[in-house]
Amino acid sequence: MKIIEGGVTAAQGFEAAGIEAAIKYQNRKDMAMVYSRTPCRAAGVFTSNVVKAAPVLWDKEIVENASSVQAVIVNSGIANACTGRQGYDCCRQTAEKTAQLMGISPDAVLVASTGVIGNQIPVEKLLAGVEKLAAARAATKEAGTQAAEAIMTTDTVSKQAAVQVELGGRTVTVGGMCKGSGMIHPNMCTMLAFVTTDAAISKELLQEALREDVEDTFNMVSVDGDTSTNDTLVVLANGLAGNPEITCKNEDYDKFRKALNYINTTLAKKMAGDGEGATALFEAKVIHAATRAEARILSKSVIGSSLCKAAIFGHDANFGRFLCALGYSGVQFDPEKIELYFQNAEKSILIYRDGSAVEYSEEEAAQVLASPEVTVLVDMHMGDAEATAWGCDLSYEYVKINADYRS
Amino acid sequence: MKIIEGGVTAAQGFEAAGIEAAIKYQNRKDMAMVYSRTPCRAAGVFTSNVVKAAPVLWDKEIVENASSVQAVIVNSGIANACTGRQGYDCCRQTAEKTAQLMGISPDAVLVASTGVIGNQIPVEKLLAGVEKLAAARAATKEAGTQAAEAIMTTDTVSKQAAVQVELGGRTVTVGGMCKGSGMIHPNMCTMLAFVTTDAAISKELLQEALREDVEDTFNMVSVDGDTSTNDTLVVLANGLAGNPEITCKNEDYDKFRKALNYINTTLAKKMAGDGEGATALFEAKVIHAATRAEARILSKSVIGSSLCKAAIFGHDANFGRFLCALGYSGVQFDPEKIELYFQNAEKSILIYRDGSAVEYSEEEAAQVLASPEVTVLVDMHMGDAEATAWGCDLSYEYVKINADYRS
Repeated sequence: MKIIEGGVTAAQGFEAAGIEAAIKYQNRKDMAMVYSRTPCRAAGVFTSNVVKAAPVLWDKEIVENASSVQAVIVNSGIANACTGRQGYDCCRQTAEKTAQLMGISPDAVLVASTGVIGNQIPVEKLLAGVEKLAAARAATKEAGTQAAEAIMTTDTVSKQAAVQVELGGRTVTVGGMCKGSGMIHPNMCTMLAFVTTDAAISKELLQEALREDVEDTFNMVSVDGDTSTNDTLVVLANGLAGNPEITCKNEDYDKFRKALNYINTTLAKKMAGDGEGATALFEAKVIHAATRAEARILSKSVIGSSLCKAAIFGHDANFGRFLCALGYSGVQFDPEKIELYFQNAEKSILIYRDGSAVEYSEEEAAQVLASPEVTVLVDMHMGDAEATAWGCDLSYEYVKINADYRS
Repeated sequence: MKIIEGGVTAAQGFEAAGIEAAIKYQNRKDMAMVYSRTPCRAAGVFTSNVVKAAPVLWDKEIVENASSVQAVIVNSGIANACTGRQGYDCCRQTAEKTAQLMGISPDAVLVASTGVIGNQIPVEKLLAGVEKLAAARAATKEAGTQAAEAIMTTDTVSKQAAVQVELGGRTVTVGGMCKGSGMIHPNMCTMLAFVTTDAAISKELLQEALREDVEDTFNMVSVDGDTSTNDTLVVLANGLAGNPEITCKNEDYDKFRKALNYINTTLAKKMAGDGEGATALFEAKVIHAATRAEARILSKSVIGSSLCKAAIFGHDANFGRFLCALGYSGVQFDPEKIELYFQNAEKSILIYRDGSAVEYSEEEAAQVLASPEVTVLVDMHMGDAEATAWGCDLSYEYVKINADYRS
């Protein structure tokens, strides 16, 4: 597996664009397009929220029923959620306009939106944006970066990743971009993520690979415990790499899964580390749990705790809060048997064992917690399962962003 | 029902004290005692957290098995949680010291602690504190207030309530105090709350009344989603009012339930409104839900959302966040059918109906959201059940308190 530069345009046959459409934001890119020169198989996972944004309803229908997908149109600024029939019409018009310009069918066009909930998108601006996107699209790395920038809302950096694997003697590329900063606590997947690949793979296996992988990647991220109305993760595979089509779970499937996992993990961690107002990536790793499901619940409970997050922000080795978050997760365990460590890239400090704190240096612990990437490692001593979850600290800035977000 | 002044000393035969013991805090009261001149029946509900503080283990044993209780000793500053055998020994020594001074049995003494998790309590200071408490105790309103002050941690105000009802021609008083500011998201009950009454009632019915009432009161409060290791709610009934003992669910039981409900509701709302860093009491009322359980889940999901809480802090009518929180609660509903209102004491503004926003005045909505008590009313149009949950807004101050709490 070879890590390369780039994002959604890294794989063969994919083009992208990012332009200014002034949907809500002024003087910044706010619309993106991803386009494949040939029809793609598509797989997707979407928010589990009962309140689903119009684009989610549109995309679910297409991913489940349409034979192929060729374009994705994304806007930032307005989420097109809680917008009723008018919001859904907006999706249809966007797809029709794109289809007409590109000479494809409207049900080969996915749409996605992110931003404030409850406002209607000005359709004329959106359709004008589609025209600009169609004209601007290119297969270059720069075009991919522009698309990644255009889907940002309160994100502070754009998020991309790309990787290559050899399948049946051919080089297959998987690349992706995502955005997500607040309202991130996916039960199904995450905010917006788009992955493209030139792998040849059946639609069924593409969907299965995505569904499995999401459990250990995007679904293990939480910024603030809020599962959005718009969460969308879509993978498009156009087969241009020319590898023997993956139609069963053979060695090639495993290699493809690893490449997809690398992209999803990388994007998920980038998202967690860029959580609204975050000063640190906060990782919770649970080992020796009884089952994988329990390991996931435990690690997510820790990264989801406001008090743990605030302790990381304050570089405060207040380990009791971490035990407390494990304790209310719903998983049964004996607090006397577990061990808790604070870790950064260089050090691992044992803090708690046999039911109470060990002798540790507060100074050293505070130093570790001041790192840009902090890990809390919990050894449950119950079995062989493990899981890792990613979040960020809770800062003044988070409150500021979310108290003022709409204005 | 007559609302009166006072707290744990309002009912006949109860004494209290609040003194300085320098357990962790300096120059402020940090130990409290509640004492009944005659033996009490005791009922209690405790944290559902797997990681239970030593005092919770001690008290559960006594409430479940001992025939009567006569004293409660509370300290603030250190929670005595994650402290292993040494922590439990500390509880035993406290009870033994109290028992010896008051001439009662150690298993008639409950203990409770609140504060930082993971540190050991300096036992000598605690025992010296017990001596001071025993000497200082009095049946006055002032003594009750001093006890309420002594159990505070990051609370900004002390919290008490008292009420009287007529049962069988005798005046029965129910009074209580509580503390709780952060780490409040009870699954079982709340931080620390102590209710005293001179009612004569069987232990079984006292426990049943408490267990039922807690579901609609303390369990409907959330400050930050963290269920503490120390949550404790205890009711002591000494029977001195001389009412015919309540031994079945008759009219007197209903009246007693109402009095208990008033005390618990009042204390719970005071706790929510004094959440760490709070500038407003944030109430979520769900009406016409299909079942009471669903109404509770929906209303708790709204008050638990960081994004909803930040919107209240910012006085921002960002109604989509409220719909989003309803949507990920786990309850199934049709977003097109519900209605959402913002309310304060004077006004009720319809914001959302038929799947999208109605025409409303942003200015008026912002004005309502700037009130010290804000209600979000959701009409589900599904059935007859309702529930109310209480929380508070999310402010810079919350982060500040919790990033610095230990230092």
